[in-house]
Amino acid sequence: MLYETLKVDVSERIMTVTLNRPERLNAFNSQMMNELISVFDRADADDGVRAIIMTGEGRGFCAGADLEKGGEAFARDTSIDEHRDGGGMVSLRIYELKKPIIAAINGPAVGVGITMTLPMDIRIAANNAKIGFVFARRGIVPEACSGWFLPRIVGISQALKWVYSGKVFSAEEALHGGLISEVVAPEDLMKTARATAIEIAENTSATSVALSRQLMWTMLGADHPMESHKIESKLIRWAGRMPDSKEGVESFLEKRRPDFKMRVSKDLPEFFPWGEERKFHE
Amino acid sequence: MLYETLKVDVSERIMTVTLNRPERLNAFNSQMMNELISVFDRADADDGVRAIIMTGEGRGFCAGADLEKGGEAFARDTSIDEHRDGGGMVSLRIYELKKPIIAAINGPAVGVGITMTLPMDIRIAANNAKIGFVFARRGIVPEACSGWFLPRIVGISQALKWVYSGKVFSAEEALHGGLISEVVAPEDLMKTARATAIEIAENTSATSVALSRQLMWTMLGADHPMESHKIESKLIRWAGRMPDSKEGVESFLEKRRPDFKMRVSKDLPEFFPWGEERKFHE
Amino acid sequence: MLYETLKVDVSERIMTVTLNRPERLNAFNSQMMNELISVFDRADADDGVRAIIMTGEGRGFCAGADLEKGGEAFARDTSIDEHRDGGGMVSLRIYELKKPIIAAINGPAVGVGITMTLPMDIRIAANNAKIGFVFARRGIVPEACSGWFLPRIVGISQALKWVYSGKVFSAEEALHGGLISEVVAPEDLMKTARATAIEIAENTSATSVALSRQLMWTMLGADHPMESHKIESKLIRWAGRMPDSKEGVESFLEKRRPDFKMRVSKDLPEFFPWGEERKFHE
Repeated sequence: MLYETLKVDVSERIMTVTLNRPERLNAFNSQMMNELISVFDRADADDGVRAIIMTGEGRGFCAGADLEKGGEAFARDTSIDEHRDGGGMVSLRIYELKKPIIAAINGPAVGVGITMTLPMDIRIAANNAKIGFVFARRGIVPEACSGWFLPRIVGISQALKWVYSGKVFSAEEALHGGLISEVVAPEDLMKTARATAIEIAENTSATSVALSRQLMWTMLGADHPMESHKIESKLIRWAGRMPDSKEGVESFLEKRRPDFKMRVSKDLPEFFPWGEERKFHE
Repeated sequence: MLYETLKVDVSERIMTVTLNRPERLNAFNSQMMNELISVFDRADADDGVRAIIMTGEGRGFCAGADLEKGGEAFARDTSIDEHRDGGGMVSLRIYELKKPIIAAINGPAVGVGITMTLPMDIRIAANNAKIGFVFARRGIVPEACSGWFLPRIVGISQALKWVYSGKVFSAEEALHGGLISEVVAPEDLMKTARATAIEIAENTSATSVALSRQLMWTMLGADHPMESHKIESKLIRWAGRMPDSKEGVESFLEKRRPDFKMRVSKDLPEFFPWGEERKFHE
Repeated sequence: MLYETLKVDVSERIMTVTLNRPERLNAFNSQMMNELISVFDRADADDGVRAIIMTGEGRGFCAGADLEKGGEAFARDTSIDEHRDGGGMVSLRIYELKKPIIAAINGPAVGVGITMTLPMDIRIAANNAKIGFVFARRGIVPEACSGWFLPRIVGISQALKWVYSGKVFSAEEALHGGLISEVVAPEDLMKTARATAIEIAENTSATSVALSRQLMWTMLGADHPMESHKIESKLIRWAGRMPDSKEGVESFLEKRRPDFKMRVSKDLPEFFPWGEERKFHE
C-alpha cells in the first residue's frame, strides 16, 4: 500500500503514521482523510501492530483544513442531507480502533489538526507545539466529533473557553487544561511516545487491550453501569477460558514475562462489537 | 423593560446582569426567577449582545433561596406532579442560551446561588467569595438541575463531597476542585470577566459561537460520537457556504481582524435546535 | 449476622467494613462477594448507620481475585449468557447505596480490589498504598462495572493509560490522576476517613444525603438536564413540607446544630427509586 499524504513505518510492533505534507504544514484534505481511514484499517488487521503513534513531518503536526481555495475553502457541493464531515469520518474510524493510539504532537495542531486527535487515547506534545480550536474565528463550527469528545476530555467549561476564543495556545496551557497528558522537549517526543507503546506491547494481551479500549470508549456514552456489567460479564466469562488468561495468571505466579498468543484479527469473541450503532462505516 | 431584582447594562456588546437585592445578599425568589428568564430571552434576541456576565450587587453574589418564611421557606402549594423547581427553570433557560455566559462570583454564592451558575460556561470568583452546596444541612436536596450539571463539571467524587458535607468553603477550594476556573482579587473580578467576553466579541462569528455553545452542551449528554457527527456534518455543510465562513478564512489569510456580519437572531440554520427535547419551555 | 471474610463495626453512627482475609492480602472470592452485598443491605436498613468506611485488615487493602486456582482462576462453569461478574454484582450494590461510602485504601488495591472502590463516593489512600488495573497483564478485561465508572472518574485518557499498561502504581500517581482525593500517612488514614464521615453524620439530614447520593449518581448517566429537573422538582416539593426541611431552616436561622429526625428506612418518598433500571438486583 502506497500513501501520498502519509508515511507509515512499523517497527518493534509499533506503527508510526506520519502526516506528510510538510510544505503545507500537513494540512488536511480529502486524500489524507481516505488514506488515514485506510491505514487504520490496515493497523487493525495486522497482528504485528500492537500500538499506533501519529505525528507530523517537518515543523508542524497538522495546520487544519487546507485553505488553498481561500474563501471557498469550506464550501461543499454535496447536499446538506448527504454531506459527511471529513474530520468526523476519521474520528469515528479512530474511535473504533482495536489498537491503542498515541498522538505525538510535534508542532502546530490547529482546527481538524487537533480535533482528530481527540478520539486518540493519549496526547503527548513537544513544548513548542501550539494548539487552537480556531473554528469561531473562521466562521465555522467545531467538527471531527469534537462536540462529543472535547467536553468529555477537558470538561465543558474548558472546552467552551477554548472554542469561544478560538485563539491559538501553548502546549503548557493544553497540559494545564487536561488536553495533553505530557509535555516534553521536542527531541524527547517520539522517544516518550514509543516508551508508552512498547510497555503495552511487551506486557499485555493484545485481545485484552483491544476489548478494554472498546469497553472504556463505548461505556463512556452509556447511561447506567448495568450496561457495563452486561458486557463485562460476557467478557470475563469468555476471557477466563482462553489461553491468554491462563498465560497471564501463570506468568504472574511464576514471576516471568507473559507470552500472549491470542490475535486481535481472529480471536475476539463473537459478541464483539457489542453495539449495533458501532457498525456505522459498513 | 424594567426589572426590580436585577440591574442590566449593555456596553461594548457585553450584557452585565447584576442580581440586585443587596439587603438580602441577593437572595433568590420567584420574581428574580421570572426576571432572569426574561433577561436571558432579551439577551438571545439582541444581536448587540455578544456575551453575558452575571454578578451580584453589594457584598454578596447570591445567598440562595430567600428564607424569610422561616421553617416554611421550602413549602409549596403546587401539587407534586405539577411543581417545577424555580432554580431548575433558570438553569434550563441558561442551558439554552445562544450567547456565552460568565459568572463573576463577587461574594457568598450558596444553595441556588451557586447551582444556578452551573449551566454557565465559565465561573470566575473573587478571592473572598464563599461557596456552599448547603442543601443537606437544610433538610432538602440539590436543585437547579445540579444533579445533572455538578458531577459533569467537578466529577462525581468532588460533587458528592461538597453535597454530603453541606459546608461553606473558600474560592480557593472551589478552584482546586474544578468548580471555578480562576480566582482573582475582588477589584480585578469584573475586569477579568470583561476581558474574556471582549476577546470573544472582537474575534469570532456570533453564529459560530451560538452553534458551538449548543453543540458542546447537548453532545455532553449524547451516547455516541455519531450523534455529534450527524449534527456537525450539517453544520459544516451549512456554515461553509455562509458569508461568515468566507470572511473568516479571507481575514485569516489577509492577516486582518474579521468583520463578521451574521446575526444570531435571524441567521441560524433551520435545523437548529436539533433536539425535540430542547423545546421544553414552550 | 456473622461474616467470615469481613469484620464489621458500628460506632458513632459510622459502619466500618474491613476486608478480612489478611493471609491472602484480602483477595476477593465469591464468599466475600456475598458477604459484601449482605453487609450493604444491612447498612441501608439500619438508621443507626449514617456512613460507611471500607478498609482492609493487615498490610493490604485487596489483592484482587484470589488466584489460588492458578491458570484456571478465571474459568467459570456458568454459561456465557447466564454468567454475572462478581465484582460487578458488588459494584451495582454499592451504586444503589443510600449511605455515603468512603474507601480507606491502606495497602495494595489491585484488580477487583481497586475496581470495586469506583462506585464508592470518596477514595482516600495511605501513602504506601499501591494500585493497579492489571487486567491486560492477566489476559482478561476490566470488570466490576469499571468500563462505566473509571472513565467518568479519571477521564478516558487516564483510564486507558492505566488499563493499557496494567502496571502497579503509587498512591501519589493515583492522586495526581484523580483516582484518589487525598493521600495521608498510614497512621492518619482511618482518622481522616472518620472525620469526613462524622462531619456528614453530625450536620446533615439522613434522607437528604440518601436522595442526593442517588440523584448525583443516576444523573451522571442522564442525557439531558431536564431529567434532573423532573426528579428535583418532585424532591424539592416533597422535602419542603417534611420535618427535616423545617428543622434545617430553623436551626440555621437560630444558629444551632440541627436535630434531624427523618429515617432512610421509612421516610423516603414513594417515587424513589426513580428509574426502573435501578431495580436490577430484585
